[in-house]
Amino acid sequence: MKKTLKIGLFGFGCVGKGLYDILQNNTENTGFEAQILKICVKDKTKKRSIDASYFTFDKNEILENEEINLVVELISDADEAYQIVKKALLAGKNVVTANKKMIALHLEELVKIQKETGSSLLYEAAACGSIPIVRTLAEYYDNELLYSVSGIFNGSSNYILSKIATENLTYDVALKQAQDLGFAEADPTLDVAGFDAMYKLCLLAAQAYGIFVNPDEVLRMGINTLKKEDIDFAKAYSKNSQNGFKIKLVANISRIGKIEENKLLLYVLPVFISADNPLYNVENENNAVLVEAAFSDKQTFIGKGAGGHPTGSAVLSDISALRYDYQYEYRKVRSIDVPTTTQFKTTKNALAEVYLRFDENLTENKLRENFNFQDVVEKRENYIIGNVLLSELFEKRDFIEENNIFVAIAGDVKAVENKEERLEAVESH
Amino acid sequence: MKKTLKIGLFGFGCVGKGLYDILQNNTENTGFEAQILKICVKDKTKKRSIDASYFTFDKNEILENEEINLVVELISDADEAYQIVKKALLAGKNVVTANKKMIALHLEELVKIQKETGSSLLYEAAACGSIPIVRTLAEYYDNELLYSVSGIFNGSSNYILSKIATENLTYDVALKQAQDLGFAEADPTLDVAGFDAMYKLCLLAAQAYGIFVNPDEVLRMGINTLKKEDIDFAKAYSKNSQNGFKIKLVANISRIGKIEENKLLLYVLPVFISADNPLYNVENENNAVLVEAAFSDKQTFIGKGAGGHPTGSAVLSDISALRYDYQYEYRKVRSIDVPTTTQFKTTKNALAEVYLRFDENLTENKLRENFNFQDVVEKRENYIIGNVLLSELFEKRDFIEENNIFVAIAGDVKAVENKEERLEAVESH
Repeated sequence: MKKTLKIGLFGFGCVGKGLYDILQNNTENTGFEAQILKICVKDKTKKRSIDASYFTFDKNEILENEEINLVVELISDADEAYQIVKKALLAGKNVVTANKKMIALHLEELVKIQKETGSSLLYEAAACGSIPIVRTLAEYYDNELLYSVSGIFNGSSNYILSKIATENLTYDVALKQAQDLGFAEADPTLDVAGFDAMYKLCLLAAQAYGIFVNPDEVLRMGINTLKKEDIDFAKAYSKNSQNGFKIKLVANISRIGKIEENKLLLYVLPVFISADNPLYNVENENNAVLVEAAFSDKQTFIGKGAGGHPTGSAVLSDISALRYDYQYEYRKVRSIDVPTTTQFKTTKNALAEVYLRFDENLTENKLRENFNFQDVVEKRENYIIGNVLLSELFEKRDFIEENNIFVAIAGDVKAVENKEERLEAVESH
Repeated sequence: MKKTLKIGLFGFGCVGKGLYDILQNNTENTGFEAQILKICVKDKTKKRSIDASYFTFDKNEILENEEINLVVELISDADEAYQIVKKALLAGKNVVTANKKMIALHLEELVKIQKETGSSLLYEAAACGSIPIVRTLAEYYDNELLYSVSGIFNGSSNYILSKIATENLTYDVALKQAQDLGFAEADPTLDVAGFDAMYKLCLLAAQAYGIFVNPDEVLRMGINTLKKEDIDFAKAYSKNSQNGFKIKLVANISRIGKIEENKLLLYVLPVFISADNPLYNVENENNAVLVEAAFSDKQTFIGKGAGGHPTGSAVLSDISALRYDYQYEYRKVRSIDVPTTTQFKTTKNALAEVYLRFDENLTENKLRENFNFQDVVEKRENYIIGNVLLSELFEKRDFIEENNIFVAIAGDVKAVENKEERLEAVESH
């Protein structure tokens, strides 16, 4: 049964306007019918590009309007977004949101509300813009055991890394360019420190493995301490007959250890990427998702990760699906109705070969006090390559941040045998 | 509402066995419940790897078994498959098939039957193996105007092209390797002459643009006349500041000409691919699909295109979706219920810069008698690069085949202005 959609829109920034454009264009071309009744915005003084009668400054004009059956939430404030989305779902309205932070923080509760009220919450635009990865994980891979879901989830930091590598820019100049082009915010921390990728990883974890991950528990390091010399080093580095690496900021969730332990490793970290990796050629503001599965093998999805139109098109796909009351079913979430589903647990109990570059004010001794390197592959006065427990990196994350240390995975990541003394490193969530 | 699936399987080759493996594995791990009740096979003498009680040689033991609510059709004979699928749909059973030729030839009729009976016909495995492109076009891009859907749809020929390029093999040696590895059949014509890619293109055309294309009307040339020298030539060729091309067998459907004319260009042809094209790095038996759209911009999907497990996993995804009676809705097909949908027409009225390499027994004069080159960019004794109408290539396809001419697109493809004398080249379907 096809539904007529009456939309209440929150936010009229880049994506909101993109959506408005698309809906205007689309009605003419494909007969897609969805009507924006009201747009709630914050700034009363800002000049708007469309008729003033569309706008309201009071959220309840949308949330309490019974004619509106769909709320599209495109604001940046995650707390405010949470209040809006929750109230909308409880009022029986369907919701489309692009707010990755809000979803990452509140998904478990919102899924419960969806189950209770029957309202539908969709968020394709919250992960990797135009790449249809949420829907693909929810639908297409609903029944397959996935080895890993990983990739380049943040366009701004990938743009910066590309520019440094191809145009020989310094980090600061590349960042400035990204900001000028609108790829990075005035405060770019969310992007370059890996928060954005981390939130996306959390919401994909729910679709891929049926777990709700607390973002605070994800091992996350960004490219904010990267220097051009790190990229040059990776380019010249060779290892196991592979020559020349690029550094990419990679978000990863993968099975690790014995299959029957159902352990998952999550991280957002810079990684040395070799030329045979599908992520190697993903440049500029593009995003990519790599899905590895037992039977379908490796799948790569590449597309624009941000921008008004790509994100707007993802929002539109969700809107279109709501004409038929489509819902994510969370078939992998273990619950009373599906007790047979595998219950995964997260772990950081893994040994990774990392490249760790530090400033001159830090001595190797100080470093060794903090990190228990199990093998040192290579060292110079300002870097070490060696094997470190990821749980240790996580525990020492404040030390790493305070000392401006740049960390990247430069080799294998292996499960650590489950010896008694290391069990403490296994956390479950 | 979740349905218990009772499966009747036709065919127990590579994919059928793959599916059997997956279902066995999956029940244990994810609680996916689907039971194979009967398997219909042809060969009565062949030894089978599973219990003999599963097998029957009479198709009606499945088609007339009321307990069976899902027919999975995995045989190679397209005519026989058509009879089976039609009868199953008419009997109210849902159907999953991997038979691209059968779908390409009969989709319009089968969609009508689906609409009349309410049975569902799914065929994700028929196009590009494990890449979820059918579902993605049907669902995610159901509302967006697509500029093009193109890519590498045939793993065997891509494997051959990769091997010639990277290992300096001759065409015959590379083909032999592909056959030894099971990527190519004893009679490889279906793959290397582009038939397989053409069938896939036809079925994606229905999902992407709502048209049912007669495969006979698609401009199709393969790599069966390719020689190592063509690949070497492309590698050394430079054009518009781009240096070095790979040759890939590309299937393409794209909008062409004035937007309001709603014209589509379809072809399966070898194409010179530059390094900035996402298809450039797609090697060996991998497939790739490139979707270009107004708003979501460029999306690339890369994955294994063939093999028992990748194809089996696509079949399984369809099976899984049928637990919820999922159907393709063909929202882009213009019909009485959706008269507002754009009606696309196909055309070959386009001028393409092609590389045309011929044997010594053919003279340039003979060639010019047959092809009206509008610009010659470059020529030597055994090849010409110049602009030719694609409609002319289509008309002269027998001449091309008889004379072992190798044709590849080597530059731009442009719409031809709709002058009177060229209107005859526009066909509608």
